[in-house]
Amino acid sequence: MSAITLLTDFGTRDPYVAAMKGVIASRCQARIVDLTHEIAPFDVWEAAFFLRDVVRYWPEGTIFVCVVDPGVGTARRIIAVESERRIFLAPDNGLLHFIEGDAYVVTNESLFLAHGSTTFHGRDRFAPVAAALANGLPVGQLGPRIDDRVALDYTPGCIIRIDRFGNCITDLVPPEGSFAVVAGGKRIDDLRTAYTGSVAFIIIGSTGCIEISVANGSAASLLHLGRGDRVSIVSK
Amino acid sequence: MSAITLLTDFGTRDPYVAAMKGVIASRCQARIVDLTHEIAPFDVWEAAFFLRDVVRYWPEGTIFVCVVDPGVGTARRIIAVESERRIFLAPDNGLLHFIEGDAYVVTNESLFLAHGSTTFHGRDRFAPVAAALANGLPVGQLGPRIDDRVALDYTPGCIIRIDRFGNCITDLVPPEGSFAVVAGGKRIDDLRTAYTGSVAFIIIGSTGCIEISVANGSAASLLHLGRGDRVSIVSK
Amino acid sequence: MSAITLLTDFGTRDPYVAAMKGVIASRCQARIVDLTHEIAPFDVWEAAFFLRDVVRYWPEGTIFVCVVDPGVGTARRIIAVESERRIFLAPDNGLLHFIEGDAYVVTNESLFLAHGSTTFHGRDRFAPVAAALANGLPVGQLGPRIDDRVALDYTPGCIIRIDRFGNCITDLVPPEGSFAVVAGGKRIDDLRTAYTGSVAFIIIGSTGCIEISVANGSAASLLHLGRGDRVSIVSK
Repeated sequence: MSAITLLTDFGTRDPYVAAMKGVIASRCQARIVDLTHEIAPFDVWEAAFFLRDVVRYWPEGTIFVCVVDPGVGTARRIIAVESERRIFLAPDNGLLHFIEGDAYVVTNESLFLAHGSTTFHGRDRFAPVAAALANGLPVGQLGPRIDDRVALDYTPGCIIRIDRFGNCITDLVPPEGSFAVVAGGKRIDDLRTAYTGSVAFIIIGSTGCIEISVANGSAASLLHLGRGDRVSIVSK
Repeated sequence: MSAITLLTDFGTRDPYVAAMKGVIASRCQARIVDLTHEIAPFDVWEAAFFLRDVVRYWPEGTIFVCVVDPGVGTARRIIAVESERRIFLAPDNGLLHFIEGDAYVVTNESLFLAHGSTTFHGRDRFAPVAAALANGLPVGQLGPRIDDRVALDYTPGCIIRIDRFGNCITDLVPPEGSFAVVAGGKRIDDLRTAYTGSVAFIIIGSTGCIEISVANGSAASLLHLGRGDRVSIVSK
Repeated sequence: MSAITLLTDFGTRDPYVAAMKGVIASRCQARIVDLTHEIAPFDVWEAAFFLRDVVRYWPEGTIFVCVVDPGVGTARRIIAVESERRIFLAPDNGLLHFIEGDAYVVTNESLFLAHGSTTFHGRDRFAPVAAALANGLPVGQLGPRIDDRVALDYTPGCIIRIDRFGNCITDLVPPEGSFAVVAGGKRIDDLRTAYTGSVAFIIIGSTGCIEISVANGSAASLLHLGRGDRVSIVSK
């Protein structure tokens, strides 16, 4: 049994996610799993990196429904990407930037809810299309292939996420040998393997990249760092 | 396999929802789905409109367990409503205002947890009753039918929800022909089909009713609008 | 089919929980249920009491994965406790303080993800171990038995939780006969069975212990009470 996983910026206080789940549960038997609904409103960047960091852990056959969609109702496209036997649905706005594979525009309107809205494609288009895929519809029947997907506005070499604990997570792969990092005008030399001590340090985090952290506190607050801030590696 | 869906104001930081899920999982095989636990504490109004907007998307056989229950432990009744082959459990406080159908008072104490509390009927009464229903108990065996349900304190013609994005969602069905709306002393003429531009506009939202919105921002903040504010339609 | 339940301080905005769920879903068919991810960061005390209050409601065979783990990457141990036919995984930091039973250190590295991180054992160790248990691995194969588990820093006679509604939940079992409580220098005499009235009162809550509450408001704010504050019972 495949799973349909949901990634949105809808929060759970409004009825949006609950309506999407109902549409899916009405149309297929797939397990429905929340990845997150707490992406900041309209924050495609945050969603793209969230997805990047979880996909590899999910089994083949998983369907990812990703709705961070400030352009809903405009001419922006809905796309499907097939990648390593997983299928991703998202608006064509950069959300699937890190997902490589064959891409299709979802134009098969027969799959959408009848009399759908222009403001809530999560419920009226994404959910029924995901259910159809879970029921075995080949991704190629969603619409024509494309090769001009929208890219994310992203230049490597920065903090890609401040997490709940205040860790500053970069996209920098640690080099061979000794190194330090410079971020926000400050140099951090201390490399650790656990969250200990009272000053900021660097650590190889769970993405395999460098993180800037303090123990039991927020490195982001302590060092006045934010998402997107440039970070560079210095050899020692 | 039927689903038991949960709608509460409990949040998820306290152990309340986790205890309810345990009671259900101990007694039946139904799929347990979170609709929301983020209803504002005691906010029956918010819960009633949340439910109104999701029910139609869920399949027949779904059991809705709705616990926003400031009167727990008092003489307030627990009711069950059967509506279009779905079953709803809630305190009799207006939460099921928009759910039409046969109503019953839940008086069959043999279904409740033994030695239950007076403060947490979600766990001690709602959860085991929902599990019994999922196991096939006819709703009529919960208790006697009633026809004096408590109504919600609601007068149509207002903003029924400010959503996470700051959209002001009304209960006003758009009329034929050109129209504008007046809310908070301001008239809004511009009707759009997507979230674009830099000024407030009206849009037909996902409930089929009129919403007041701005692109990438909060119409509620911009126009100083709140839930319950009166809104009227003006012909053009 | 057993359930794997998750209790963490990860929140759901970061990709941590979604990665854990993926690892579990990749390796077993168990139902995955969120207990909470909203434990305050690093708050082992909060997690221990959360767990205490939900365990009895879950069926035999349930696997509890509890990750509030400020010591991740240090020499702190991961332990498994088997208690009344349920299995608990947690760091050895007091989180399982209220779970009595045979304890084992999880040292069987063949169960962990290959090339795991030092910072995210939830994904790299807890999740695959839970999946192995769901697939039938006896808990004794995780590692050697121990009898020196870390205890929680807890002295009975206090407020153990301020809940979402502002109720002050104590660990005090109500005595026979009339009684009052003293907390924060104030004496509270009024004992009620529902949340009514406009002044603070005591009520026997859903844990079976005494709570200090006000109707439709926060007793914690009104009385300036916090978690850990001492509370005593006075006979009348």
